Amino acid sequence: MAIKRKTREERPLVGIMMGSASDLEAVEPARTILKEFEIPFEMKVLSAHRTPDQALQYAAEAESRNLEVIIAAAGGAAHLPGVVAAKTLLPVIGIPIKSKSLNGLDSLLSIVQMPAGIPVATVAIDGAANAALLAIAIMAGKHPEFRSKLRRYRKTLEEKVLNAVV
Amino acid sequence: MAIKRKTREERPLVGIMMGSASDLEAVEPARTILKEFEIPFEMKVLSAHRTPDQALQYAAEAESRNLEVIIAAAGGAAHLPGVVAAKTLLPVIGIPIKSKSLNGLDSLLSIVQMPAGIPVATVAIDGAANAALLAIAIMAGKHPEFRSKLRRYRKTLEEKVLNAVV
Amino acid sequence: MAIKRKTREERPLVGIMMGSASDLEAVEPARTILKEFEIPFEMKVLSAHRTPDQALQYAAEAESRNLEVIIAAAGGAAHLPGVVAAKTLLPVIGIPIKSKSLNGLDSLLSIVQMPAGIPVATVAIDGAANAALLAIAIMAGKHPEFRSKLRRYRKTLEEKVLNAVV
Amino acid sequence: MAIKRKTREERPLVGIMMGSASDLEAVEPARTILKEFEIPFEMKVLSAHRTPDQALQYAAEAESRNLEVIIAAAGGAAHLPGVVAAKTLLPVIGIPIKSKSLNGLDSLLSIVQMPAGIPVATVAIDGAANAALLAIAIMAGKHPEFRSKLRRYRKTLEEKVLNAVV
Amino acid sequence: MAIKRKTREERPLVGIMMGSASDLEAVEPARTILKEFEIPFEMKVLSAHRTPDQALQYAAEAESRNLEVIIAAAGGAAHLPGVVAAKTLLPVIGIPIKSKSLNGLDSLLSIVQMPAGIPVATVAIDGAANAALLAIAIMAGKHPEFRSKLRRYRKTLEEKVLNAVV
Amino acid sequence: MAIKRKTREERPLVGIMMGSASDLEAVEPARTILKEFEIPFEMKVLSAHRTPDQALQYAAEAESRNLEVIIAAAGGAAHLPGVVAAKTLLPVIGIPIKSKSLNGLDSLLSIVQMPAGIPVATVAIDGAANAALLAIAIMAGKHPEFRSKLRRYRKTLEEKVLNAVV
Amino acid sequence: MAIKRKTREERPLVGIMMGSASDLEAVEPARTILKEFEIPFEMKVLSAHRTPDQALQYAAEAESRNLEVIIAAAGGAAHLPGVVAAKTLLPVIGIPIKSKSLNGLDSLLSIVQMPAGIPVATVAIDGAANAALLAIAIMAGKHPEFRSKLRRYRKTLEEKVLNAVV
Amino acid sequence: MAIKRKTREERPLVGIMMGSASDLEAVEPARTILKEFEIPFEMKVLSAHRTPDQALQYAAEAESRNLEVIIAAAGGAAHLPGVVAAKTLLPVIGIPIKSKSLNGLDSLLSIVQMPAGIPVATVAIDGAANAALLAIAIMAGKHPEFRSKLRRYRKTLEEKVLNAVV
Repeated sequence: MAIKRKTREERPLVGIMMGSASDLEAVEPARTILKEFEIPFEMKVLSAHRTPDQALQYAAEAESRNLEVIIAAAGGAAHLPGVVAAKTLLPVIGIPIKSKSLNGLDSLLSIVQMPAGIPVATVAIDGAANAALLAIAIMAGKHPEFRSKLRRYRKTLEEKVLNAVV
Repeated sequence: MAIKRKTREERPLVGIMMGSASDLEAVEPARTILKEFEIPFEMKVLSAHRTPDQALQYAAEAESRNLEVIIAAAGGAAHLPGVVAAKTLLPVIGIPIKSKSLNGLDSLLSIVQMPAGIPVATVAIDGAANAALLAIAIMAGKHPEFRSKLRRYRKTLEEKVLNAVV
Repeated sequence: MAIKRKTREERPLVGIMMGSASDLEAVEPARTILKEFEIPFEMKVLSAHRTPDQALQYAAEAESRNLEVIIAAAGGAAHLPGVVAAKTLLPVIGIPIKSKSLNGLDSLLSIVQMPAGIPVATVAIDGAANAALLAIAIMAGKHPEFRSKLRRYRKTLEEKVLNAVV
Repeated sequence: MAIKRKTREERPLVGIMMGSASDLEAVEPARTILKEFEIPFEMKVLSAHRTPDQALQYAAEAESRNLEVIIAAAGGAAHLPGVVAAKTLLPVIGIPIKSKSLNGLDSLLSIVQMPAGIPVATVAIDGAANAALLAIAIMAGKHPEFRSKLRRYRKTLEEKVLNAVV
Repeated sequence: MAIKRKTREERPLVGIMMGSASDLEAVEPARTILKEFEIPFEMKVLSAHRTPDQALQYAAEAESRNLEVIIAAAGGAAHLPGVVAAKTLLPVIGIPIKSKSLNGLDSLLSIVQMPAGIPVATVAIDGAANAALLAIAIMAGKHPEFRSKLRRYRKTLEEKVLNAVV
Repeated sequence: MAIKRKTREERPLVGIMMGSASDLEAVEPARTILKEFEIPFEMKVLSAHRTPDQALQYAAEAESRNLEVIIAAAGGAAHLPGVVAAKTLLPVIGIPIKSKSLNGLDSLLSIVQMPAGIPVATVAIDGAANAALLAIAIMAGKHPEFRSKLRRYRKTLEEKVLNAVV
Repeated sequence: MAIKRKTREERPLVGIMMGSASDLEAVEPARTILKEFEIPFEMKVLSAHRTPDQALQYAAEAESRNLEVIIAAAGGAAHLPGVVAAKTLLPVIGIPIKSKSLNGLDSLLSIVQMPAGIPVATVAIDGAANAALLAIAIMAGKHPEFRSKLRRYRKTLEEKVLNAVV
Repeated sequence: MAIKRKTREERPLVGIMMGSASDLEAVEPARTILKEFEIPFEMKVLSAHRTPDQALQYAAEAESRNLEVIIAAAGGAAHLPGVVAAKTLLPVIGIPIKSKSLNGLDSLLSIVQMPAGIPVATVAIDGAANAALLAIAIMAGKHPEFRSKLRRYRKTLEEKVLNAVV
């Protein structure tokens, strides 16, 4: 029996990481955007603290696996995006998840305040949709067709605003 | 007399924007990194509030001028990165500048908390070096040689740490 | 058939802008006050990020359309009031909308911390009622009858307090 | 000997209040702007806490004295703008002064978070220049020539940005 | 018919002020404590912003009416305690009420950060019970029997803790 | 040889506590005020953490030693005022000292956010002068002459403001 | 009748303190962890403010009672961990409890910002599970079998993450 | 030539990690304390972001190298302590270093807000002395002589306070 090989189109371009399955809800809008744009991606639950080896290995292999962007979501002492960024040269986008006590201010500062040398492209607290859109804009340098899709998306946003009735 | 045409190598790939010439010091480390990486860039003083038309025009034309990333630095009510992001599909990186009274917390929140639809890739307060490194990582999708440079840069960072004596 | 021309009394003096129809609830108290004071106004959904051209055009034309004050409400990276202020000489009042994660602290700082040159008259987080009252106080310089209305309104406020039973 | 009467042009349109002579430095940019615009104003040291009666009396009489806007600067538990606003129907602009320990966050919140009914138009921490510009924009409703001056001022701001060399 | 004169025991020693009847819930624990201690008090709804004259008059007359302490509760730009303190030499206790957007941080800073010269004895956010207990401790200097009551109250607190079962 | 007994006038009414001799500078304005008012006081360096037994003993004996108010200054995790308040029924005034990293926000919250049952009368960060003035206002209930002194002091404050030239 | 003596195995190694029975819910995860690890512990409701003598006595006797770690949970002006640390040489772990108004930021700063000399090992806001795990890691220096248990626990955490399906 | 073998007394019990040689000043007080207590330790510059492999390897081998506690200092997005804690079962103490823009609030939250499962014992911002003292208190469970040294140290602290003259 022939094994169906993953075609180039199906190979993931974006890896979405989160530290716990409970982060899935916060990450969902990124998934929605990537599906809408028909961009292949994969999602991984890997924790900087509970599975550091696997998280780092994932980051270290991402480039050779032809991923183009990594999105990492984390809350509280949100180390995942920074730790992943330390192990890959790919652009890493960090999503600070709203936390229970400090409402995500801790997540935001833990992600954005990276030391010189290892950047993390940080989006808003619970900004998963923008993380996906930023990933697409980044990949559009290499994939011009993504830019066309972004253009249409922006047009839709604009129309939604212009058609609003108040 | 023959006018020397700008060669492809000299055309800027990165546009660095700042709202005021007084922001130059905060932006300097980005310039240093880009020069070190020999990546052509341009710097513009354009304000979201004092020269809104020119700032938006610059953003609107960036793509057709073959810029690949825009870096925008701003402090206080730091609207420049978001306003620029609204007018281009290129990835926009925001640098929150440390402000006089609130130490850049205002700049950070003004830049990072963008609404769904228009992302700004935010780096640390006064994180100009990382803004440049992130721009390079983004462009490396299309320019693989940038990734090799990044790899060497990371190696240098690592060695500097490993050689530290305390 | 004769087209009924808009009389001078019906032409809006105040333009209320918001970035999304979902901001309507936060803006509602401004509408209530302006109706109570019988001051003509108009409401527009226009976003600094999703419809930047239209938002700026609205601001640029406001003076020639005989608007006297613009009220702009926004949340998170709340750029609308500042961007509008950049394109008009009319007084612009900013309403920071309470945001989901940071409770409006981000909105407040994004609106109030404007750089020297382009002021935004900022009211409290979710302070739409005061935005309207401030607009009326501003217009009262030219429309003395507004001041009389404000005087009666203040009297009512005072009586409500004095009649409270605890 | 004839006493030279104050001509209409010399009567102050703007009253600038501060709680202490030590606030003068923070208020200075407002004075500079108003002088530059040749708009008559007066400055008063009056404290909501140390001279409450005089501060309130000043506010109560401002309208009949033909002032058109009051600017009040205060730091820390910055009550002056709110207390003044309680006693006048004129637009009151509050300047939060940067404070020693909390850098003006206390001043800002004390001024901007006014309850519904009594607005204070708040500008940035140490935003005295913008307080003056906002006052001028407010008065321009009645004094169209102020708008022309504002237009020229904006033009200067724009040119300063456009001429910056980096 | 003889009018029953208010006996000395019934004359209020503590005045509890709040800016709005809606603050009553936050103030309730103070009432409960004062009743439990059988200390005569009065409650007034008076606003620093909506009824400044009456609020100041109340403060100015408090000493001659033989009040010994004033408790003032306020939220947001919480000016009432400071404004009252400016008009009386009696000790003024401020209760910062938890606010809708900033959870009372604004109330706390507006009350506690008073300038040198006019103190307000500030208790915790929503700390009405402690405001009453502090008032009693203050009055106990003159009324030694209050100290005995406080001693018994403390004993009860202690026993409640010691008897807790976990 | 006859030992000169401490006269009643010389016995301290106020105890000023601080956790370290390095807090002396922050406490100095309290000393200045009490001297100016000729109110006997004593100063003690006692730490809630380094000398807990002595600090608590001092608090426990304060009432029997005829102290009338305790002022306690502390920075960072500022436990001294609360711990002292737990061991005395006298009014305890807390001075949050500006701290090195968090500018006194930690000190303020550690002091003011006391649980129901044990109040601390909190003044502004570095508000030692107001701590002394509050102590005097508290003692004035029993010592009417203090109120006269306070009245004169307020008059001086007022005159200083009214005589300011700007 | 013979009284069953407490065997060595049953003697508590960890003392968990909380200021009020209402803190039990926040402390519960610590209890769960210690039970799961079969480590004997005791729980005490003792308040730094309502039962200071008993709280300090408990701390002072902990070492001689062969406790090895003390965990203290507190909210608001959270003095218990610091006050306990002042009276024992045992490691003290502080749990900042999420507070009603400031979400535990006050608790965190009150616990963690201890002055040099008396450390408190602080865990996250509402971080009771980690307090217990830290206590176990600390005791593992003397009890190597605890380290084996920790190793198994970590393995479980890791597997839970690796088995997550998203 | 005989190589002098490291005696048991000289083998380090504490490993102090910092991300950059520039953190040395912040860490210095820990070194001072450990030297004063004659406890062998080692210092390593290893970064979670610039040398992740070496940092993790160090953590992973610490237990087998007979280290008993790890102290990790970091500023900004301070991931080092958490990342180290993920790779060892030893107690890890985190020192938040005061950062340039946010004064260490970012460092503190990044370190203390660890997710359930992997604790970091956090001390105050720039609290290196307490980190060392906490390490000693932790090790004293196995090394009773450390407790005697701590007792003497506390006595010295106490005497310093009691001998202070103000």
